[in-house]
Amino acid sequence: MTTDQQIDANGQLRHLITLEGLGRDRISALLDRAANLREAFAKGANGPQLLAGRTIINLFFETSTRTRTSFELAARRLGASVLNFDIASSSTSKGESLEDTLATLEAMQADAFIVRHKENGTPARLAACARRAAILNAGDGNHAHPTQGLLDALTIRDHHTDFSKLKVVICGDIRHSRVARSDVHALEALGASEIRLCGPLVLMPAAGDFPQCRLFNNFDAAIADCDVVIMLRLQRERMLEALIGDEAEYFSRFGLTAQRLSRARPGALAMHPGPMNRGIEIAADVADGPQSVILDQVANGIPVRMAVLASLLSS
Amino acid sequence: MTTDQQIDANGQLRHLITLEGLGRDRISALLDRAANLREAFAKGANGPQLLAGRTIINLFFETSTRTRTSFELAARRLGASVLNFDIASSSTSKGESLEDTLATLEAMQADAFIVRHKENGTPARLAACARRAAILNAGDGNHAHPTQGLLDALTIRDHHTDFSKLKVVICGDIRHSRVARSDVHALEALGASEIRLCGPLVLMPAAGDFPQCRLFNNFDAAIADCDVVIMLRLQRERMLEALIGDEAEYFSRFGLTAQRLSRARPGALAMHPGPMNRGIEIAADVADGPQSVILDQVANGIPVRMAVLASLLSS
Amino acid sequence: MTTDQQIDANGQLRHLITLEGLGRDRISALLDRAANLREAFAKGANGPQLLAGRTIINLFFETSTRTRTSFELAARRLGASVLNFDIASSSTSKGESLEDTLATLEAMQADAFIVRHKENGTPARLAACARRAAILNAGDGNHAHPTQGLLDALTIRDHHTDFSKLKVVICGDIRHSRVARSDVHALEALGASEIRLCGPLVLMPAAGDFPQCRLFNNFDAAIADCDVVIMLRLQRERMLEALIGDEAEYFSRFGLTAQRLSRARPGALAMHPGPMNRGIEIAADVADGPQSVILDQVANGIPVRMAVLASLLSS
Repeated sequence: MTTDQQIDANGQLRHLITLEGLGRDRISALLDRAANLREAFAKGANGPQLLAGRTIINLFFETSTRTRTSFELAARRLGASVLNFDIASSSTSKGESLEDTLATLEAMQADAFIVRHKENGTPARLAACARRAAILNAGDGNHAHPTQGLLDALTIRDHHTDFSKLKVVICGDIRHSRVARSDVHALEALGASEIRLCGPLVLMPAAGDFPQCRLFNNFDAAIADCDVVIMLRLQRERMLEALIGDEAEYFSRFGLTAQRLSRARPGALAMHPGPMNRGIEIAADVADGPQSVILDQVANGIPVRMAVLASLLSS
Repeated sequence: MTTDQQIDANGQLRHLITLEGLGRDRISALLDRAANLREAFAKGANGPQLLAGRTIINLFFETSTRTRTSFELAARRLGASVLNFDIASSSTSKGESLEDTLATLEAMQADAFIVRHKENGTPARLAACARRAAILNAGDGNHAHPTQGLLDALTIRDHHTDFSKLKVVICGDIRHSRVARSDVHALEALGASEIRLCGPLVLMPAAGDFPQCRLFNNFDAAIADCDVVIMLRLQRERMLEALIGDEAEYFSRFGLTAQRLSRARPGALAMHPGPMNRGIEIAADVADGPQSVILDQVANGIPVRMAVLASLLSS
Repeated sequence: MTTDQQIDANGQLRHLITLEGLGRDRISALLDRAANLREAFAKGANGPQLLAGRTIINLFFETSTRTRTSFELAARRLGASVLNFDIASSSTSKGESLEDTLATLEAMQADAFIVRHKENGTPARLAACARRAAILNAGDGNHAHPTQGLLDALTIRDHHTDFSKLKVVICGDIRHSRVARSDVHALEALGASEIRLCGPLVLMPAAGDFPQCRLFNNFDAAIADCDVVIMLRLQRERMLEALIGDEAEYFSRFGLTAQRLSRARPGALAMHPGPMNRGIEIAADVADGPQSVILDQVANGIPVRMAVLASLLSS
C-alpha cells in the first residue's frame, strides 16, 4: 500500500497502515491531538466521548496482550464498544478467507479493525478491500507498527521540542523490527538530525534498507553523544541466529548499561518498547533509573491510540 | 421441549428454542420488531436502550465467533452488559453439572443465556431448569438455529412481501443442518408456496423428516423456477461421507454457479449462512454478484437478535 | 504481607490480600456496605455508579470463570470498565517479570487488579510493588481467598446476627483450602463460639496451623450441634492422596447427607463454595434442600465484591 491509499479523496486519513511518507504535518497533528486528549483525560475523569456508538474490533492474529489492551482502553475511553475477535476459534480457521471475514464483520457495522499479523502487508490487504471501516495496523511482520512510532515520538517530544538537534540510536535486532522501521519514519518526518542503527551483523537490515540512517556494529561508538537511546526487544529464538554465544555475551556487547549510557549526552532518554528482557537488552538499574522513560512510553500509548482512532472515526 | 414450553402463562415468549410451531403471527411480529429496530439504529446512532442494566451471558460450548459476535453486538446496542463465559476453563470442565452452572450464573443475576451446543436439546434442557432467565438457542446439533431462520426470513421479506407465491430451494448437507430445519419452519409458518430440499443422497434427511418439502438429488431440476436459493455450508469432514470424490465434483453437482442460478426465476436471491467455502458450495462470482444477499443476511442478524432479546427481556 | 501492609497511613484499606488480622470492625463494615449495595441494586435497577471511569483488570493465572465472572459483574455494576488480561498469551509468557507486567498495566492507568495465582503470596508480592493501584486477592494457593470468606460471613449473618452463639464445622480438604483459611479468619473476627475442622487425616492441616479450631476426623461427631456446615470442594486428584478408596467411600465418611445434617442443630445452614461434586462432598437432596444456602453464597458474592471494590477505589 502506498501512503496515498491511507488518505481519502478529501485528504483525510482513512486508514493507518504505516508512517512512511505520512509527512511532518500529519504526524505532528496526531501528536498534538494525543497531547490534548492526554490532558483532557488527565484526572482519570471521563473526557469527550467522541466514539460513542462506534464499534471497534480487535483482529489479532499474533498474540499481544499489551498492545491489544492499550488499544482497547483507548477505544473505551472515547466511548466506543470494543470486541475481541477470537481468531483461534473464528471462521478464518474454518476455511473462510480473510476478506470474507472482514466483509462479514463490516456487515455487522464494525467501524474499525485493529489488525496485528505476522505477515507483512496483511493490514494493507484488508484496507484495500474494506468498504467503509478503517484499518489500523497494530504491527505486521517486520514492516510497520505505526502507533508505536507515534508514541515513541510523543515521548521524545515531551522532552525535546526541536527534533532538528536530536541524535537518536536504535539498538538491537533491527532486521526483524517493525518498531525500528516505524520509529525511523517518525523521526525522519519530524526532522531528527541523525538516526543511528546498531546491532549484531546478522541482525542488521539488508543493504539499502534504511538509506537515511548511519549503521554501527559497535554500541559504544553508536551511543556516543546521542540524545535518545531506543533499545529493541530480542526474541530468544534470534539469539542463535545472531551468532552470539549466549545472553551474557549479547548483553556485554549490545546491552544498555549505566556505564554505556554515560557515553550518550547527559540526560539522554532510555527507551524500550517492551516487554523487556532485563539483563539481556537493558540493565535493571537503567530500566528503573532516572533517564528511563519506558513507562512514559506505555502511558503515551493510550492517548496516541485515542488520537488515531478519533482522527479516523470521529470526522 | 414443545413449543408451549417457550411460551409463558400469559402467552408471552419466554425462551427461544425453536421456530417449530411458533406460528405465523409470532414470527411476523419478531420480524416487524427487527425491521423497526433496524430503522431506529440506522445511522449508527444509539437507539432505545431497552436492556440497560440487564446482563446477558454467552454460553458457547461450540465455537462460533460469527454468531457470538452478532449476539454480543445486538445485546450491547440495546444497552445490555454481555459476558462471554469461557467454557474451556469453566466449572463444567471441573465436574460441575450444566444445571449447576446455570443455577450459579442465575444466582449472579444473569437475565439471559445465549446457548450453542453440539448436542440436540441442550438449550431446551437448560430452559426446563431456568428459574428466571431466558434461554436463547444459538444452534444445537442439527436441531434448530432459530435466529438464523428469522434472519433468513427477514432477508427474503425485504424482497418479497407475499410468501404465498415463493418457491425456495435449500441445497447441501440437509441431514446435518440446523439452518435448514429452522429455515423450513420459518418459511412454512410464513406460508411459502413450495420448499425444495436438494443434496447428495447420503446427506438428505431421514425419511419423513421434512413432510412439507419436496426432495431432489438433482440441483438443476431443484433450482428451476425458484425465487430463493439457500446454499448450506459443507463441513469438509462430510465430504467423504457424501460419497463424493472431491470438492470439484461436489461443486460441479451441487455448487451454485451463475449458469445454474440462471435456471431460477429472474432476480432470484442467492443466500448462504456463512462461513462460505467459495468454489465448493458457491462460485465466487455468484457470492459477490448482484443476486447475492449474503451480506444482507449477516447485517440482518443484528436487528433480528435485538428483536428477540428485547421481546424476551424488556417486557 | 502483614495485615498492616493492607492498610495505608490514614488507616484506610488499600489492598485486600487476606482477612487475617483485619479485625471485627473492618470486616463488619465491609459486610454492612455489601448489604447496603445489595439493597440499592435489588430490583435489577442501576444503583450508584461509584466506579465510573475506573479501570479494573482481571489477572487470573489460574482459571476460575466463576470467581472472575463474579468480580467482573460486581465491577461493571459500579460503572467500572473491566479488562480480562489473557495470561496465556501475555508478556509474562514472553519472559517479562510479573512486576514489569504490573508496572506496564499501571502505566495504562489501571486502578485495580484482581489476582488469582496458584502460588501463595503472589498478590502480596504485587501489592508490595504497586505504585497506585489496589490489589485484590481472588485466591492464592492455599493461603487466602478473602472475598469468599466475606461472602460466607454475609450469608451466615443473614440468618444469625449474633456470631457469639455459633458453632461452625468446615469439612473436607482443609489442608489445601484457602477457603477454609479465609472462613476461619472471618468467623474468628466476628466472634464465632466454636470452629471445627474435619477431614481425612492426610487432608488435615499441619500441626499448629489453626490453633483456634477443634480438629475432627469423624464427621458425625464434628457436625453434632453445629449451626453452620461448610463443605469444601475435593479436587479429584486429591482422592488418591487422601488414602481413600474411591468417591463412594469418601462420600460415606465425609459427604453431607440429609441424615448427617439432622445431627446438626435444627435449621443448620448447609454451605459449599462451589463448584460442587454432587454425590462426593454433598448429597443432591441436601444441595437442593431447604437448609442449603449455596445459591445465596453465589448471589452474595456480587455485593461483597462491590463493597470491597468500592472501599478500595471510591474514596
